[in-house]
Parts: sequence; structure tokens; C-alpha cells
Amino acid sequence: MPPIPFTPIVQGLPSTVPFVGPEAQERNRGRKFRARLGANESVFGPSPKALAAIRDAAAENWKYCDPENHDLKQALAAKLGIAPANITVGEGIDGLFGTVARLFVEPGTPVATSLGAYPTFNYQVAGSGGRLCTTPYVNDCEDPDSLLALAKKEGARLLYLSNPDNPMGSWWLAEVVQELIRRLPETCLLCLDEAYGEFAPAGTLPPLDVADPRVLRFRTFSKAYGLAGARVAYAIGAAEVIAGFDKIRNHFGVNRLAQVAALAALGDDAHLAWVIGEVAAARDRIAAIGRANGLAPLPSAANFVTLDCGRDGAYARRVLNALIERDVFVRMPGVAPLDRCIRVSAGAKADLDVFEEVLPAALKAAG
Amino acid sequence: MPPIPFTPIVQGLPSTVPFVGPEAQERNRGRKFRARLGANESVFGPSPKALAAIRDAAAENWKYCDPENHDLKQALAAKLGIAPANITVGEGIDGLFGTVARLFVEPGTPVATSLGAYPTFNYQVAGSGGRLCTTPYVNDCEDPDSLLALAKKEGARLLYLSNPDNPMGSWWLAEVVQELIRRLPETCLLCLDEAYGEFAPAGTLPPLDVADPRVLRFRTFSKAYGLAGARVAYAIGAAEVIAGFDKIRNHFGVNRLAQVAALAALGDDAHLAWVIGEVAAARDRIAAIGRANGLAPLPSAANFVTLDCGRDGAYARRVLNALIERDVFVRMPGVAPLDRCIRVSAGAKADLDVFEEVLPAALKAAG
Repeated sequence: MPPIPFTPIVQGLPSTVPFVGPEAQERNRGRKFRARLGANESVFGPSPKALAAIRDAAAENWKYCDPENHDLKQALAAKLGIAPANITVGEGIDGLFGTVARLFVEPGTPVATSLGAYPTFNYQVAGSGGRLCTTPYVNDCEDPDSLLALAKKEGARLLYLSNPDNPMGSWWLAEVVQELIRRLPETCLLCLDEAYGEFAPAGTLPPLDVADPRVLRFRTFSKAYGLAGARVAYAIGAAEVIAGFDKIRNHFGVNRLAQVAALAALGDDAHLAWVIGEVAAARDRIAAIGRANGLAPLPSAANFVTLDCGRDGAYARRVLNALIERDVFVRMPGVAPLDRCIRVSAGAKADLDVFEEVLPAALKAAG
Repeated sequence: MPPIPFTPIVQGLPSTVPFVGPEAQERNRGRKFRARLGANESVFGPSPKALAAIRDAAAENWKYCDPENHDLKQALAAKLGIAPANITVGEGIDGLFGTVARLFVEPGTPVATSLGAYPTFNYQVAGSGGRLCTTPYVNDCEDPDSLLALAKKEGARLLYLSNPDNPMGSWWLAEVVQELIRRLPETCLLCLDEAYGEFAPAGTLPPLDVADPRVLRFRTFSKAYGLAGARVAYAIGAAEVIAGFDKIRNHFGVNRLAQVAALAALGDDAHLAWVIGEVAAARDRIAAIGRANGLAPLPSAANFVTLDCGRDGAYARRVLNALIERDVFVRMPGVAPLDRCIRVSAGAKADLDVFEEVLPAALKAAG
């Protein structure tokens, strides 16, 4: 049999991928988790209006979705004070990153990010044959100065920054991000991942400036809006950049119920405010549980708290595994020195009760 | 301002795309359609079990979907008598074609298809920079001999065949497809689009042969299963080809409710049989309505009937527009000589009543 005629890019990619969901872990363990605190989902759920919209529209699922995502884009544009032409909707930020990679990355194209930052961005860049260039976190923050210097040195086409950051929960004030944007090379496009933006303190998100073709901002209904399973996110940018998405995206990619649910969720500010309040309280409690057990909580502007286990990555991995064995799904950063930590998503009271209950034994088991 | 640094492939793509949904037409017209018969959707809807599954699972939408599509793949594998490793699930066949293009097509890679065949396949190939090579339909059928000769002459990496065919409704018996497969060049991969396979007469779909790495077969929950809005389809192939999808696909692309709904729909054979019966009856009625108005129905193995208007493309376009003006959404093939026809999806009685009511006036208006 001749070899499968995959492209050279595909032939060069690893066959293992970093996407192991909690469901796969549950299947392997033969046992459900008691607390699902690893994927920064919103256990507080979507707006009841979104759930009602899904149930009401379920029977319409025989129809294809609107490929223009018209109603959702209109609502987003009105809410954000920009034009629909400044917005593209996609199958989660992951899906949008895939399109971005195909729009801007050719084999060998340099792309700048931080060592340990969001792996799916890297996955999508690699899938287009890009060359990933990284710079370390500084004090558990992605470092704008290092990233800029790297982008200039390498001639990066894309620069990734998450604000607030995942997996560390750290964040920069808007002025810092704006200064980064001012200093961006002309042909470098900032991919500003604001998936956790709704949880951040006022003054974190820079005002929108859709006149600047060097900035794409990514937001999602997966986090504060509690619709991770629906797969719907959007990118905001200059109209001439956004227009590029329509040239290659899967136009019918965002499913019908996701569009309906996101639209309803967007209209429920009271639910959003409630979720943000619950998340803030949950962060405080995770931090307190951590402290009570000798772990140092990092400040967080997201819907999770990263807990410094105080030793090396091998130790934190043992803590993580001991938690998983005790039916608590958590995750941890992938590279040193970030991997001295575990990352715990904001849970409801019952979830955090379980975490509080099993953490001492997990730490003891980890040695 | 410097030009946006899109890749050369993207720069070379048209900014207009063929994806105008009925919703966009309704917005432009300022009026809803009375009958939605243009997108080969299943107005008969999904299984009630699928709707119940969606409603039951709606509140779980705060969780990400299973990136492995495990349960659905297991059920498909059991039903089809193959292994889960021979199946990949994606965001509709359109989404799967996007992944296929990225797996196999580089700038300039030749790809063979029929002139007037499924445009989204072409769109995805173009999005990877491929070079589309076409051969005409013969007697309103995609022609295996011509396609093979073209693939050999051009050294095509991919060969597209839809069986049954969209937009013409024609089909080949399994033996013809198997003969095409036997004669495929070693490095040419057949993309066998069986989106309409459930509607075809027995003997149309070749038996599955997942040992052959030169064949990928595409099936969907959008047609007979009535879940077009959910965006879920699958490809069947040799394990080493299917494994390639995991290297680049959007692992979290198929939303949670789609997975749940497809699984439930797959288990309701009685509903599927009922839909197939309704579609057969609707085909007969569309053909009869066409004949009564002087249009010649083409034989169809799909959930639509293509009606030959008996003159040129300009005339058929006028008929189409006259139907749309009368609130009947239909479509038509895009290229000559196929474009002498209009294409009418199998509708429910009320839909076809509207079609029957307005067709005489539409034909009169078309002149």
C-alpha cells in the first residue's frame, strides 16, 4: 500500500493531541467525577432564557442554521457599539483560531506566544505549518515587552495574548494592552483572547477600536454565558480583516440552537451579573481552601483560581492525580515553572465542598 | 495603512461566496417564505426522540462537548459493523470537506470533480489553494469514466462523486461505484458523498470497505435524520486516513446537543423509515405537479426532484425567481446545461400545496 498522500504539513504533525476531555477520563476510570472543576466551564449555567430558547427552537432543527449568523451579529453589534461588519461568529474561539491560522499562516510563518499559553492556539498555528516562537511568562504573567521583542525579532505575523490569562488567571490593565498595541509592528496582528473578559475588573479590557487592522479580539459564550457545549464565539476586528473570514470559514458551522441560545443569553444581563458574582465568591472560597491547606492562590481575574503547590511540576502532577483519583476533575499548566500549580475552576457550593473535603487527603497522598 | 497580511491563497480567493440562506432572502424581501423547499432539508423533522434528547440535555450545555464524539461513534460503528477508528465526526459534511482539503490539498494540488457538482466541496478545495479540474455531467449524471480519465490525466489527489447526486438527483448502482474504486489511481482519494444515501434504492450504496485507504465516504444527519441545524456528519474510511483528521480538526467543533440528538436519531429506525416513505411520496407529487405544468421531472434517488424547465438557464432562472416572489424557496443548478432545471425539495403536504398553487402563475410570469 502506498503511503496516505497527506500534505507535508500534516505528515509533520504529531498524532497525539492535547484534547482529553473529562468524559474520556470518566470512561477510562469507569466512574463519574463528583466535581467538574477542570475546564473552566460555568457550572452556574446559561441564562434560563437561553435554555427556554433552545427548547422552543429544538423542533426547528430540521432547518439549516443562518450562515450569516445575522441576528446574533446584529445584537452583538448593538451591544458593543460597532457594526456587524466588525464581527465574525465561529464554532468557539478554537474554531476561530483555526480560521485565523488559515488566513495568516503559511508553512514557516513565525507566530509569537508565551511558553505555556493556550495550547489550542498553538495547535491551530501548527496545523497551518506555522513556526511557533515563545517567550516565558514573567511573574506568572504573559509579558508584553518580551512578546513584542520576540515578535519584532522573528517577524511574527501573529502575536497571541490572553487577557485575563489562562492558565494563570493573571491580567493586565487596559493601558498595558493599549501600549502593546501602539508598539505592534505594522504587519503583526495581535490575537487578543478575551474569553474570560467578563470576569475581569473594570479597566482590564481596552475600549474597542475597530479602525485598527492589527488587532483581533476573541470573545465567547463558553465562559460567563455558560454555553460551552453550544460552540459559539466571536471575533471583533477591522471590517477588512473580518471580511477575510468569509472567504474560508465553514459558513454553516455555528449550529442553529447555538445562535438562538447565544442571542437569548446576550439579552440577560441580570443572569450574567449573577454569574459574575457567584464566580467571584467561588474564587474567594477556592483561595481560602487552598490557603487552609498550605497552597498559595494566585490572584485571578478569570473563573478559576490557580493554586501554587509550592514545589515542582512532578509534585503538582501528583496532587492533580490524587484529586482526580478522588473524583475531582482539575487541570494544571503544562510547562515549567507554571506547572508548579493546579488550576481549579469556579464551582458551585456543592462542588467546592467536595474539593474542600478531598484536598487534604490528596495532598497527603502526593507526599 | 499596509495591506492586511493574508496568505497568498486567501488573497486570491473571491470575496463573494455562494452561501445565501433562505433567512437572508427573507430579510431582503421583508417577508417570510410560505414553503421552504430549496435546501433539501427534511421538513418531516428529526425523530421525536432526538427532540426529547435535546430538551433533556439543554441544561447540560454549560459543559463542553465530548471532543471524541465517543458515544455517537460507538453507536455508528455498531450500526455499520465497523470500528470507531474508521469514523470521524464533524460539523456537517461541509466541515468535514474543509478538513479533507487541509489534509490533502496544497497550493496547486489537482482535484477532480464534475462541472456543476457540490459547490462547497469546491469552496473548501479552493480555500486550501487546490486546482479544481472538472468534467461535464453526462445525461444529468456525474460520469465515472470521465472523472477517472480526468483524475488520471491531471494526477488528481482527490476525486469527488456524490451518489445520489445533488443537484440532479441521479444515482449509480453500487457496481458502477465499485468499478470506479477499482480503477482509482493509487494516490487518488475518492470523496464519496452519500448525504442522500438513505433515500436511494437498495443496491445504490456499495458495501463498506474500510480496508481501502483510497475511499472516504461522507454521511450526514442533515438530510434523512432531519437535523440540518445541528451540524453533525461523519466520514468513514481506513483507520490510517481517519487518524489524520485528529491532527488538525477542531476537536470541540461538534456541539453537545448535536451529539446527543444524533445519537437518539440514529436509534429511531421507525422514524427514519417513515421519513423515507414521506419523501418518496413527496417526490411523486412534485413530479406530478411538474408534469401537469409542462415540466419534466428527472428521476431522483434523493429528497428532492429536479424539474427540467425545457429551455435555457435564463428561463429556469426566471421560473425560480417567480417562485421566490410567490414565497416559495427553491434553488437551481448553477451551470449549463444543468441550469435548465429547478430543484424542489420534498415537502410536507402543505408545502407542496403552496408549490402547486403558485407554479402556474410563476411559469406564466417567466414567459
